[in-house]
Amino acid sequence: MTPDALKDRFRPIFSPTSVAVVGVSRDLSKSGSRYFTALVKAGYMGKLYPVNPREETFAGFKCYPAVSAIPGPVEYVIISVPIQQIVGVIDDCVRAKVRAIQMFTAGFKETGGAEGKAIERQIVDKARSVGCRIIGPNCIGIVNPSAKIPYGPVSFRAEPGGFGFISQSGGHGSGIVSAATSRGIGLSKGVSFGNASDLVDADFLEYLAVDDDTRIIGAYLEGTANGRRLFETIRNAARAKPVIVWKGGTTGVGAEAANSHTGSLAAPYAIWSAAIRQAGAVSVLSLEEFMDTALAFQHLDKPVDRLAVISGIVDGGGGDSVSATDACIAAGLEMPAFSGATRAGLNSILKPVGTILRNPLDLGNPGPDPTLLARAIKTVAAEPGIDLIIIQKHVDMLLDQSDDAEPVRKMHQGFIELRKSLPKPLFVVSPPGTREAERVALDGELARGGVPVYPSLERAVRALVNVRAYYRMREKRGG
Amino acid sequence: MTPDALKDRFRPIFSPTSVAVVGVSRDLSKSGSRYFTALVKAGYMGKLYPVNPREETFAGFKCYPAVSAIPGPVEYVIISVPIQQIVGVIDDCVRAKVRAIQMFTAGFKETGGAEGKAIERQIVDKARSVGCRIIGPNCIGIVNPSAKIPYGPVSFRAEPGGFGFISQSGGHGSGIVSAATSRGIGLSKGVSFGNASDLVDADFLEYLAVDDDTRIIGAYLEGTANGRRLFETIRNAARAKPVIVWKGGTTGVGAEAANSHTGSLAAPYAIWSAAIRQAGAVSVLSLEEFMDTALAFQHLDKPVDRLAVISGIVDGGGGDSVSATDACIAAGLEMPAFSGATRAGLNSILKPVGTILRNPLDLGNPGPDPTLLARAIKTVAAEPGIDLIIIQKHVDMLLDQSDDAEPVRKMHQGFIELRKSLPKPLFVVSPPGTREAERVALDGELARGGVPVYPSLERAVRALVNVRAYYRMREKRGG
Repeated sequence: MTPDALKDRFRPIFSPTSVAVVGVSRDLSKSGSRYFTALVKAGYMGKLYPVNPREETFAGFKCYPAVSAIPGPVEYVIISVPIQQIVGVIDDCVRAKVRAIQMFTAGFKETGGAEGKAIERQIVDKARSVGCRIIGPNCIGIVNPSAKIPYGPVSFRAEPGGFGFISQSGGHGSGIVSAATSRGIGLSKGVSFGNASDLVDADFLEYLAVDDDTRIIGAYLEGTANGRRLFETIRNAARAKPVIVWKGGTTGVGAEAANSHTGSLAAPYAIWSAAIRQAGAVSVLSLEEFMDTALAFQHLDKPVDRLAVISGIVDGGGGDSVSATDACIAAGLEMPAFSGATRAGLNSILKPVGTILRNPLDLGNPGPDPTLLARAIKTVAAEPGIDLIIIQKHVDMLLDQSDDAEPVRKMHQGFIELRKSLPKPLFVVSPPGTREAERVALDGELARGGVPVYPSLERAVRALVNVRAYYRMREKRGG
Repeated sequence: MTPDALKDRFRPIFSPTSVAVVGVSRDLSKSGSRYFTALVKAGYMGKLYPVNPREETFAGFKCYPAVSAIPGPVEYVIISVPIQQIVGVIDDCVRAKVRAIQMFTAGFKETGGAEGKAIERQIVDKARSVGCRIIGPNCIGIVNPSAKIPYGPVSFRAEPGGFGFISQSGGHGSGIVSAATSRGIGLSKGVSFGNASDLVDADFLEYLAVDDDTRIIGAYLEGTANGRRLFETIRNAARAKPVIVWKGGTTGVGAEAANSHTGSLAAPYAIWSAAIRQAGAVSVLSLEEFMDTALAFQHLDKPVDRLAVISGIVDGGGGDSVSATDACIAAGLEMPAFSGATRAGLNSILKPVGTILRNPLDLGNPGPDPTLLARAIKTVAAEPGIDLIIIQKHVDMLLDQSDDAEPVRKMHQGFIELRKSLPKPLFVVSPPGTREAERVALDGELARGGVPVYPSLERAVRALVNVRAYYRMREKRGG
């Protein structure tokens, strides 16, 4: 299929002009009601129809007895009804010639029973007969911040951006959207596809590979029905864009859990991880590493090897410098010595006692003065042997010194400006501590200002190693 | 030395009846001033004397021109003056026959210069001539929450408890106290000892091994002057109490950084980690792992192997269950299948759809109902093949459903009561997300209520593996 044909095919799925929700009810805590109200709250701009034969209105909208009773075309239908009603609802959608159906309803193939499997096949056949595609069942469905479509009933407000994801798990999809929202990772499109009765992993990946909004692709997978096609798709996608794969069910017992979760059969992890890497993608082991790596890709379009680490804004950074070196060197990254010119430059900026003019640089407690920090950072950035700068800071220590958030905010503003003006990328490490409410608010401003923030140096370094591995693989393949 | 003699020797250091601070000044941002005001704010109950020859009063206290001018005995002196004044101040302390001196002042052995080294030797000789001991120089010094002595100028309010630590790095000491404060890890005593000019690593460890308040010992070390004595001390301590050692400078380059940080020579990490384990202690690689392990020891007095994991309080826990299994099995822990009786018990509590009655247990979205959760958790705890229960929850998802913290607070109250009444330990995993200010407040209540909370299942599991390794080693040694 040509890229343009693919884009056309997925347009009604990720950017539908009209959405109906089947299964709204007076009980606002029910999933159908929550899907609908979340769309309203998010400000979805298309036509929106609640469907329930026993209600006249829902949330101020006229309620329809069936999808086929809605005047005008309906592109996308979200279904959250008991499984006993599902065949009737699908027949109704077929009559209404909807383009795509997203099914929250569960109890199909994943139960392991013959009946659930048979119904799943039946509804797919019905939908396909009129060219309608199914997302799920047993899934949360799509998210598209630029179309103001939230992730299912969840109201987290991720910003539009370049990270597109697919997730076999609805819950991990929530984790992905939550982390994207809090860490300043912009989302292009995302989907939890559950049992993958019709549209499967590779279908969505093919689309994200050609989607103009998607610069980085992430996939949480538990198993697949067609490994050959999946890995061929990952290989093609990874030629164009970074692809991060988090494989769940990596152990025998975990694979059993995956089977009862989304009814998928899982091959041994060793086979998966080798295949992921051979396909030119990055293999990660947890949600943290998945999001950390996506954030690093958001800021890096080439590999980095040689780091400068700056610590000691308050109360000395000797221990931080030692630990930073341990983490970088253990991960196979370099921390080159500074040249004489850089050391001389730093010497003219920083006071001598407590300062250690090497890489890692211990600033020796100058405080959060943005002017001094900018001079020191620029001096380090001018060092030709450095690819990337990491600043370690402790918000609770900073607040403890002055009990005022304003100096920290000004320092962050300085980092945001530097990130834009510096010729090299700037990462920040900010561990949790005793003043989390204030730290999260301050670091949130920093992240939204475009500076990547990590909770530990180890996690930042792990992400950098993944980014490097991807670009090196692509270089080898001549990508 | 007998345990009682050791306790007597360290009583004036960790529980002094009087403290003088040399180096207070009108500038409240100076370290000496901050040390003094932090003691006042913390409510230190002993006698407190500011010392500065140019001031009449400081912070409402009468200011003395010298330590020897203070009427009555002074047990403990905190010094924060420029290095040029240090010999005079030490002479004054010797005249006043103080028992111990803590030196924030830096610029000694750690600079690598001959002069700093010579002064360091000179002041140690002077102090020892009257039986006075030195902590530091180039250190933050002691902390003792039960004596209301804060960690240097830092005002974090750790609660009294059983974790005693020593840290060669002042900054990592702050990190330890910060994490202890926020995660509900009670501190017995702690010390950052910097250059260890007089009292060294092994001295403090010997004391913590006999200190009645200390149940768990942690040590951040960069190098040591006497490896044989250090490891003999760790071996003896680990016979009585869990000992956690975090070795910084684990790489060649990191060791170089450690040398300029606290002037210590570091042996290769392979030698260290082997020696740590041979001594019967736990070797960790980061601040996170150090504190995670201390928290686990606070709740466990024997090894655990067999876990039950419960997920899916809201919106399904399928993905969480798969990931939990991956993490547990990869770490070499067991997740035994539930017996028929346990499954039957759970079946009578939980609704069938979306629920997966295995270990890991997916509750299938019952919401934060404390009664239902308590019934399910008690049913799992009654399973004889289970040593420990882990509950995974997502605070932002919980808040997103009802936009009200009260149900979460009630659920937490239920966990706190269960932790006390259950025959098995209960751990909680609560990852960061989109509503951090609320999560941190809620999880803080949970942690202060005595429930250990971890930000990821991987980190909880890593801590459990460390705890198991320690108790298994002790069993082998017949401890």
